[in-house]
Amino acid sequence: MNAVVETSQEPMLLRQDTHGVSTLTLNRPGQFNALSQAMLETLLTELEAIAADTSVRVVVLAGAGKAFCAGHDLKEMRGNYNKAFQQALFRLCGKVMMQIVNMPQPVVARIHGIATAAGCQLVSMCDLAVASDVARFAVSGINVGLFCATPSVGLSRNMGRKQAFEMLVTGDFIDATEAQRRGLVNRVVPLDALDDEVAKLTASICAKSPAAIAMGKQMFYSQLEMGLDAAYQHAAEVMACNMMCEDAAEGIDAFMSKRKPVWTGK
Amino acid sequence: MNAVVETSQEPMLLRQDTHGVSTLTLNRPGQFNALSQAMLETLLTELEAIAADTSVRVVVLAGAGKAFCAGHDLKEMRGNYNKAFQQALFRLCGKVMMQIVNMPQPVVARIHGIATAAGCQLVSMCDLAVASDVARFAVSGINVGLFCATPSVGLSRNMGRKQAFEMLVTGDFIDATEAQRRGLVNRVVPLDALDDEVAKLTASICAKSPAAIAMGKQMFYSQLEMGLDAAYQHAAEVMACNMMCEDAAEGIDAFMSKRKPVWTGK
Amino acid sequence: MNAVVETSQEPMLLRQDTHGVSTLTLNRPGQFNALSQAMLETLLTELEAIAADTSVRVVVLAGAGKAFCAGHDLKEMRGNYNKAFQQALFRLCGKVMMQIVNMPQPVVARIHGIATAAGCQLVSMCDLAVASDVARFAVSGINVGLFCATPSVGLSRNMGRKQAFEMLVTGDFIDATEAQRRGLVNRVVPLDALDDEVAKLTASICAKSPAAIAMGKQMFYSQLEMGLDAAYQHAAEVMACNMMCEDAAEGIDAFMSKRKPVWTGK
Repeated sequence: MNAVVETSQEPMLLRQDTHGVSTLTLNRPGQFNALSQAMLETLLTELEAIAADTSVRVVVLAGAGKAFCAGHDLKEMRGNYNKAFQQALFRLCGKVMMQIVNMPQPVVARIHGIATAAGCQLVSMCDLAVASDVARFAVSGINVGLFCATPSVGLSRNMGRKQAFEMLVTGDFIDATEAQRRGLVNRVVPLDALDDEVAKLTASICAKSPAAIAMGKQMFYSQLEMGLDAAYQHAAEVMACNMMCEDAAEGIDAFMSKRKPVWTGK
Repeated sequence: MNAVVETSQEPMLLRQDTHGVSTLTLNRPGQFNALSQAMLETLLTELEAIAADTSVRVVVLAGAGKAFCAGHDLKEMRGNYNKAFQQALFRLCGKVMMQIVNMPQPVVARIHGIATAAGCQLVSMCDLAVASDVARFAVSGINVGLFCATPSVGLSRNMGRKQAFEMLVTGDFIDATEAQRRGLVNRVVPLDALDDEVAKLTASICAKSPAAIAMGKQMFYSQLEMGLDAAYQHAAEVMACNMMCEDAAEGIDAFMSKRKPVWTGK
Repeated sequence: MNAVVETSQEPMLLRQDTHGVSTLTLNRPGQFNALSQAMLETLLTELEAIAADTSVRVVVLAGAGKAFCAGHDLKEMRGNYNKAFQQALFRLCGKVMMQIVNMPQPVVARIHGIATAAGCQLVSMCDLAVASDVARFAVSGINVGLFCATPSVGLSRNMGRKQAFEMLVTGDFIDATEAQRRGLVNRVVPLDALDDEVAKLTASICAKSPAAIAMGKQMFYSQLEMGLDAAYQHAAEVMACNMMCEDAAEGIDAFMSKRKPVWTGK
């Protein structure tokens, strides 16, 4: 028997679905939820399953134990010291991040503790993020000689380039308030109010038309990569399509009759 | 006689020119200045006329009544429920937004009250924005099943992507202070100081060389869509051209002689 | 003898190297360190020399006298009033800016006083910036009929577009606190603590692996210009390469053994 193998009966990723909210909890608390290859594969599989599941309206990404996520599993990386392993690992990591962006449901990071390196990257790539006031954020790979290259992709698209660069070359932590000020998280609340705040945000999303949210999310990230004129042409086309959805007709009729809309998701 | 037809003698868009400042006031106060097709057409025509009018140095965009602008005219959209109408409407809307960017004069939004959906988009696309401290901003289409796709183009180029995405999927309002903190508006003042603050900003622009402002505005938006190296090459060429303008020679001579420059606009 | 010729024996750019930190000081205090053609050429030559000097880990860019840098040398520009001179000047200026981005070592601006026009551009293009609380920033070319085109490239990549545009068309100053809030500088401290704060930042960078910093800096600016998917593919490849460096193996081993790493730079 090999002591390195995790023998716990608990799966490394927990999924709990309630009223349209699917909560995925990274569950390697003893390793601060480090993103081993197996963890990334499991996360990708689960996110792909959710993407195809119309009963899920919004995803919450959380961590078990003290930390939200401490990044990649350095022990595993060092134990597989060949370039093919590293390439496969970082490509897989990139696939997980792109899956968050490409799936139809919004993904909300729930950050109760530290989020470092690829853990901070996860936060940056979620559509939304709610943090406790004791959460802290760093891209600390540089402390072990490994520049947080993949984390820099999300980080530099969430905050100013000088601020991102400073974190990347110093490895220093920022607190939750600073993370909010810079744009890395949307809301900061005391730890004991964290679940309520996440619930408020997910409830707000669940009250909206799933068709409009899905079309909107896809359009949002597409237009971000276009020039202004192309972005307007794309957005105009998507908005005309959205307007012809049953949900838009219902939504406007309900608004004009001062009643609550009933979405069909069409 | 059709009750739906607006019978007011007042035009839906007012234009008032004073000392180089052209103020355009959206004038459908009973409809919170909703951007009907006719309103967008009128706005486009007026902005095109101003673009060709060298007596105008800066444009102020304002709203009559309680609101700045509540977005598209949902009643009209629902009353013309076919895709061709919607496509034409959103393309027209995009043309108005691009006209603001492409015209030589800076356009300043004067936001005294709420700016929602395409009204918030108008704010985001103006070059500058001054808000009263009671102004509020939302992209609330999602509440009626219609994701604010075209508004997202400007919004996501004014603030961080997580902050923009939250507004788009929740439909929640932000106040003027938060809008300033995020970059959606430049200045926030009490309502009774709003016109003075707008006047200060427009006076500052009117005191500059029209040639330099026009070259600069065009270059500014062009270089934003380029990579860093291409942006520098373009900006260097524009700056050399600007330097050879009569106004630059006059400006530098005046500066070195400690006198006020006299611009010819050449 | 020509009074216009600078007769000082002091070079216009001072270089002082200490423990891996190379400090370049713009040394035309009588001209507020104006970036004459000779100054830009000297600066480019020195930055190119440093780029090839593996003993230098980080560069500090500072200014002698009262100002950090007041931009281009208007007197020289007006005295060479032909387009070829202006084109050569602004292209050279662009080359200096791109050299800062393309060199392997991080460059830190140390701003003790005013930074205007191309001086503000220098700040915007440094990887990091530390300012004293009496420093002030403006892109004031518009006051002399010359829109700060090349400065706008860096400025608009450091702060929101409305905020940058306001500075460009008004020429108004912002103070150090506001510059930090917007993302133009990383840290603001009292003037008498400025050197200590710069030293803290450079010491933090010097303690890291040179190989990781160099790979990371190059990757950081490359991925900023890519779409999200391409950025992840590029970053994943760089991170796998970085992981195979001796420094990463050493860094992880040191971390797991709870000892200090010893970098070889390989």
